[in-house]
Amino acid sequence: MAQDVNRRWLLAEYPQGMPSTQTWRMEEAPRPEPGPGQILIRVRYLSVDPYMRGRISPARGYTKGVEIGELMQGGGVGEVVTSNHPDWKPGDIAESMGVGWQEYAVLTPDSDGRGGVNRIDPALAPIQSSLSWLGMPGMTAYFGLYDVGRPRPGDTLVVSAASGAVGQLVGQLAKQAGCRVVGIAGRDDKLAWCSEIGFDAVINHRSEQDLTGAVAKACPQGVDIFFDNTAGPIHDAVMKNLANHARVIQCGRIALADKAGQPDMGERFMGHLIVTRASIHGFLVFDWWHRRDEALTRLAALAREGGIATREDVLDGIESMPEAFMRLMEGRNFGKQLVRLGG
Amino acid sequence: MAQDVNRRWLLAEYPQGMPSTQTWRMEEAPRPEPGPGQILIRVRYLSVDPYMRGRISPARGYTKGVEIGELMQGGGVGEVVTSNHPDWKPGDIAESMGVGWQEYAVLTPDSDGRGGVNRIDPALAPIQSSLSWLGMPGMTAYFGLYDVGRPRPGDTLVVSAASGAVGQLVGQLAKQAGCRVVGIAGRDDKLAWCSEIGFDAVINHRSEQDLTGAVAKACPQGVDIFFDNTAGPIHDAVMKNLANHARVIQCGRIALADKAGQPDMGERFMGHLIVTRASIHGFLVFDWWHRRDEALTRLAALAREGGIATREDVLDGIESMPEAFMRLMEGRNFGKQLVRLGG
Repeated sequence: MAQDVNRRWLLAEYPQGMPSTQTWRMEEAPRPEPGPGQILIRVRYLSVDPYMRGRISPARGYTKGVEIGELMQGGGVGEVVTSNHPDWKPGDIAESMGVGWQEYAVLTPDSDGRGGVNRIDPALAPIQSSLSWLGMPGMTAYFGLYDVGRPRPGDTLVVSAASGAVGQLVGQLAKQAGCRVVGIAGRDDKLAWCSEIGFDAVINHRSEQDLTGAVAKACPQGVDIFFDNTAGPIHDAVMKNLANHARVIQCGRIALADKAGQPDMGERFMGHLIVTRASIHGFLVFDWWHRRDEALTRLAALAREGGIATREDVLDGIESMPEAFMRLMEGRNFGKQLVRLGG
Repeated sequence: MAQDVNRRWLLAEYPQGMPSTQTWRMEEAPRPEPGPGQILIRVRYLSVDPYMRGRISPARGYTKGVEIGELMQGGGVGEVVTSNHPDWKPGDIAESMGVGWQEYAVLTPDSDGRGGVNRIDPALAPIQSSLSWLGMPGMTAYFGLYDVGRPRPGDTLVVSAASGAVGQLVGQLAKQAGCRVVGIAGRDDKLAWCSEIGFDAVINHRSEQDLTGAVAKACPQGVDIFFDNTAGPIHDAVMKNLANHARVIQCGRIALADKAGQPDMGERFMGHLIVTRASIHGFLVFDWWHRRDEALTRLAALAREGGIATREDVLDGIESMPEAFMRLMEGRNFGKQLVRLGG
């Protein structure tokens, strides 16, 4: 009977500021049955990503959020158990943004849902890579850096949350493009790893007394590209060091996670923008989904040539999902945050 | 003897916040003599522009500012009195950004100074047009709107300082490009004129209690292009109404004129930028100077076809320069602010 149970996390309340153990509640539901054209997967890894904070807020987002009592949204990868679709058979590996925080998921391969249902080749890379560097975070780094940042050899790039799922890739891709790369993170072990994988300089935003001065010192020619995953005080320090015609990719705002619904007050930089003729670009990877194959093919090729180091932070069991998400929000993870199910 | 005198305004002190009558002092200097390759002009109109605020600040700007005791920088247009240059003869009309706040100016046509020395055809338009719609403000509207804003028919455009030298052109050019145009200004007579020349809706930012709500009402589909000449509270209200993929041209920041040297504190909009995938572009017309002829040729053609209404605000006499500049800073001007010399 136990194998007929599907444990799943439902949204219990909209968090004020940081989410907590009160934010979700676990439900034991019957294992779902796939309908015509659908497949059932047993989830092997669930992804834990900063965008999820936006899904549990009543404020306007770029897509429909989770209602109270609904299954928490999220991506995952797993093994097909039952297939009612001609192209899928038991044992195939499927990845989707539409899995949700649960042990079993019914997916509809022919639906046009965001990101669709993707077939994963387990011979290419460990299947959880489809949730990190060979998936959405990889595409985020690829399109944000190349298409918005437009790196040129000799540019100085700063990336915040440098050892995270996106930051680690941005830094390495920028190095390959000939940039000087500076990483900002909040723990010395994270920064030591960034240095190991090729970053030219690193800054600890928690221990640094004068963050603006530290950025200036690490970037004597100013900052040409700022790939910002955090917003907040790190953003402010880098904005004061922009070079002329700098490009700021505003990819995330995890430093504001505890301010949900409240305005983010602080210094504004309109004068800096005009004087430097810099630009700030709000970035969402979903706008680039039509070029998914291009990004993943290139990233896989770079990895084959030994060009990409990656790091994951894995917790075990569906019961770990809230804790994994809070780790991410508080920067306690080191690398791509994942949860492994079913041992 | 009086005609040998050149009255000129020197910077007396860096203003804290708004400039005042203490900011400059007038000097009576001998009329200058042109050297080899130079021309002497008698100035007919001096331009008064928001960028001048940045030139009298010790803070980093995009170009060298005015030192204490130096001639105040500014553009002007006048008639050649003496020429030591083969291409110029007495009576020709010359325009330059390098005139300064004075009655006579020596210019060097072959120098590569910013903007150079431009020959003005008085048959084409009144010569002071070379300081407004057929000059730098015209280029600002042209390149900022077309190249950065990238208007499409059906876009909603909001422009602040809507009746000003740049704003009045942005609105009309955007209408011709098929946009719905909303103007923001601080006086009802300015807004009435904007409506007359074709703006679809207008908002008075001084009398409106709920500026964010007023923008929302005037822009039911959101704001696709925001041509911002002011920064400050108007910027904030429009940022909360951006449509997806909106482009913000950050052209000016006149609302911050009294904050020189102090940070501009307030709400930041990183979340709005990400959700909407909007971008903010710091804009300086000097980056587009190599395309000056293109812009002015097109603007002249539009005017010939009856497509451009313009409005000037003219004070008389070199002694009016500080007052003219303060009018502009405080929004008391109505249209392009000019000072006419020599009656």
